[in-house]
Amino acid sequence: MPYKVDLNSDLGESFGAWKMGMDEDVLTFVSSANVACGFHAGDPLVMKNTVAAARAAGVAVGAHPGYPDVVGFGRRGMVCSADELYTDVLYQVGALKAFCEAGGLKLQHVKPHGAMYNSAAKKLEEAMAIAQAVKDAGDGIILMGLAGSKFDEAAEKLGIPYAAEAFADRGYMNDGSLVPRRMEGAFVKDVEVAARRVIRMVKEGVVEAVDGTVVRLKPQSICLHGDSPTAVQMARTLRARLEEAGIEIAPLK
Amino acid sequence: MPYKVDLNSDLGESFGAWKMGMDEDVLTFVSSANVACGFHAGDPLVMKNTVAAARAAGVAVGAHPGYPDVVGFGRRGMVCSADELYTDVLYQVGALKAFCEAGGLKLQHVKPHGAMYNSAAKKLEEAMAIAQAVKDAGDGIILMGLAGSKFDEAAEKLGIPYAAEAFADRGYMNDGSLVPRRMEGAFVKDVEVAARRVIRMVKEGVVEAVDGTVVRLKPQSICLHGDSPTAVQMARTLRARLEEAGIEIAPLK
Amino acid sequence: MPYKVDLNSDLGESFGAWKMGMDEDVLTFVSSANVACGFHAGDPLVMKNTVAAARAAGVAVGAHPGYPDVVGFGRRGMVCSADELYTDVLYQVGALKAFCEAGGLKLQHVKPHGAMYNSAAKKLEEAMAIAQAVKDAGDGIILMGLAGSKFDEAAEKLGIPYAAEAFADRGYMNDGSLVPRRMEGAFVKDVEVAARRVIRMVKEGVVEAVDGTVVRLKPQSICLHGDSPTAVQMARTLRARLEEAGIEIAPLK
Amino acid sequence: MPYKVDLNSDLGESFGAWKMGMDEDVLTFVSSANVACGFHAGDPLVMKNTVAAARAAGVAVGAHPGYPDVVGFGRRGMVCSADELYTDVLYQVGALKAFCEAGGLKLQHVKPHGAMYNSAAKKLEEAMAIAQAVKDAGDGIILMGLAGSKFDEAAEKLGIPYAAEAFADRGYMNDGSLVPRRMEGAFVKDVEVAARRVIRMVKEGVVEAVDGTVVRLKPQSICLHGDSPTAVQMARTLRARLEEAGIEIAPLK
Repeated sequence: MPYKVDLNSDLGESFGAWKMGMDEDVLTFVSSANVACGFHAGDPLVMKNTVAAARAAGVAVGAHPGYPDVVGFGRRGMVCSADELYTDVLYQVGALKAFCEAGGLKLQHVKPHGAMYNSAAKKLEEAMAIAQAVKDAGDGIILMGLAGSKFDEAAEKLGIPYAAEAFADRGYMNDGSLVPRRMEGAFVKDVEVAARRVIRMVKEGVVEAVDGTVVRLKPQSICLHGDSPTAVQMARTLRARLEEAGIEIAPLK
Repeated sequence: MPYKVDLNSDLGESFGAWKMGMDEDVLTFVSSANVACGFHAGDPLVMKNTVAAARAAGVAVGAHPGYPDVVGFGRRGMVCSADELYTDVLYQVGALKAFCEAGGLKLQHVKPHGAMYNSAAKKLEEAMAIAQAVKDAGDGIILMGLAGSKFDEAAEKLGIPYAAEAFADRGYMNDGSLVPRRMEGAFVKDVEVAARRVIRMVKEGVVEAVDGTVVRLKPQSICLHGDSPTAVQMARTLRARLEEAGIEIAPLK
Repeated sequence: MPYKVDLNSDLGESFGAWKMGMDEDVLTFVSSANVACGFHAGDPLVMKNTVAAARAAGVAVGAHPGYPDVVGFGRRGMVCSADELYTDVLYQVGALKAFCEAGGLKLQHVKPHGAMYNSAAKKLEEAMAIAQAVKDAGDGIILMGLAGSKFDEAAEKLGIPYAAEAFADRGYMNDGSLVPRRMEGAFVKDVEVAARRVIRMVKEGVVEAVDGTVVRLKPQSICLHGDSPTAVQMARTLRARLEEAGIEIAPLK
Repeated sequence: MPYKVDLNSDLGESFGAWKMGMDEDVLTFVSSANVACGFHAGDPLVMKNTVAAARAAGVAVGAHPGYPDVVGFGRRGMVCSADELYTDVLYQVGALKAFCEAGGLKLQHVKPHGAMYNSAAKKLEEAMAIAQAVKDAGDGIILMGLAGSKFDEAAEKLGIPYAAEAFADRGYMNDGSLVPRRMEGAFVKDVEVAARRVIRMVKEGVVEAVDGTVVRLKPQSICLHGDSPTAVQMARTLRARLEEAGIEIAPLK
């Protein structure tokens, strides 16, 4: 098959006695899982079990480090220094890497979570701190970040493997950035439309922006959601459409 | 030199804005440092800096995992399941291992902290959970535990490298266990007496118990304290006495 | 109506992004709610919303303080000093009291949670520390504890208002203690049997122990569960049976 | 004495096994203490002991709530919603109020800490959320905030008691705001100069701004630091100068 893409989703977001997400379902449609590492969700026991479930499902595992904010689920902006970002990410990546190795898996990638992701996508200093942590964690771990963001630049500067991700259910501006959530066109709700857009990204390396312009967007991975039965159904349909279009779904190399 | 022993002490116990310990002084007399991993003390930035300081001082680094209890400093007993113990230890070891590798060091050993250490020393199931985590963390990491405790047994059962530790400043019962802290003879306060006892442990593999019996005790490492100017002075004197007695101070192999 | 009893259940156990429990359903069958206070579950926003929901439902509010262990949900034993227990309980009670007062409610009672409850039920020193915190929180707050436990004794010694609670779904030993969870007879699964037992407790002040003996048990409150649709259904049936038997369901005085 | 001012300082910033600050010294020169409430520093046992020490020293107690960020000591900006701010503040105030009442004291004031203080000083929505929490905590508790900031406005809008504070060791811009820390004139290092400035604030209600303009500044409280022997010495000298100038040092009414 000439075309290939990775499908990723967040996993292992349960915490202590609290369950979250439909991990079993998600593992049936993704090729890569972003596993929470304890700072915003996940606890050591959840991490171990999530890695085992991913391995059993043949899904590649990545670390999903977040800000140290369990109550806020890592979604609240926090003003962390570059040093704090570097060490917070390295700590979380190291912890998940240990579970991967103990479980017979290689840690494939690191994708920052929530507010940490959003902030670093726009600030090179933060993206660099995160990328440096990924580099220093060794083993050729891949950094995954928003296509067209500071993550691309940081990975290139540090010479580390990189996977750009795009969103099937989000609109894009003509500069390749996401349409802000409150603007019209922010979301693509029709799964068939979303599928056609992703197929075009993968095959042609472009997406139609909200203003009709066709802009360059060539992701290695597509982010899907699995936090509701509807989301799961959409993700399944989307995967089916990609496969029907001759696109192989596979983890990052 | 025919005789050799490791000297270890707890390090990196600062947390956020709070400083603790006299790490710079401690690094001048130990050969191995037990570095807190964030659950009872230490935070990612402290861990990075502690590993760097140990490396600069030529001191080997071990992980010092504790119960998840920052307020209680890991000193309060907690009823954790074997699964929780295993995953809590693997998580912390993985995190510190990442800082070691990023800092150009190999993680030498794992020594549990405080209440976790005391409980597992007496309960084989707990010692086994911890030892399994050390084994699964890979790279031939050495488990360090109380000489004559369940740690010895767990390490042997799992076939992992092991270092038994003894205390220079504690009395021993005739079964090789420590004199309980509230009993007479619990502490050895005279540093010269302590030095002679340690020299005998290292050279003859025995210690005189509180009742006068001579019992077998052959530690690979001696635990020292550096949490006060007095403790630092005692540790320095003790190290000097050992060297004068022809004992080489060196990290675990 | 000559007979009266309170029905209580745990509420407000969500935490950050994680939902737990069926609070809306529970509020339809209890007269008192034990609201988590942030140490094992609940966060300030959840607390505010839970107090508001209880008030809207005409349900009395109590504090449900637990050990400082979110990951373990306060279910893991922790060796806390009497001072730590006192201050941990006073802190949590003060916090919830503020939400009650801000929401136009009076804090009715304090019922410790999970492992803290179980431990203090057996240890007078711990029950005393908790009772002293309740007393010092002022306003005549009622301590709620296991009938026949050290809580009874502590409340009496300190002269504070007290409500003994019994369990509809648990068997009792002939000394009035609960049948341990792993023993036969630990659970009463048939709701009709449970209802008859509770009616007898309320009207006659006795329960039939697992060995057939009839022992004294006169609770002011009955603990119900609402953590599953089945539990909710059982609780509703039980409440209906009590009312059919002429027992008024009402908060503690 | 016709002139009067309050001197306040942060207290109770120890946490678990970690000590911080020179609380005993600070209690000798302040009339009001801002006591940490567990979210950025302080733990329940520290809070109890700090309230007791303040009471013994005849110093009034205020709550010093912060962002939920122990590792960052509440100094890192966090994007909290108004609802989160309100509930986080009410929770912390309620907890400290319980310790005050148990210790025979009335909670005098609430002064937000660190990044929460700095952010709300500039954003009315945040200042309003905090002021509402203070109002809802009842008992006429005084809000303390930066003179000339959004705190003034919020307190006025809600009609709650308010105390504006000024800094003895900081320079002011001609609009009454603080000179940013990195600008020249940000700090007043000479204690005699600082004393003269404070005396002028208290007696004349003005301060000379960094550009020489005399601007209005009439604080009810002056913030002092006690985190180093030097700071303690400066604070003592400053207090002496105020008293020599006929200014009475007394808590807020």
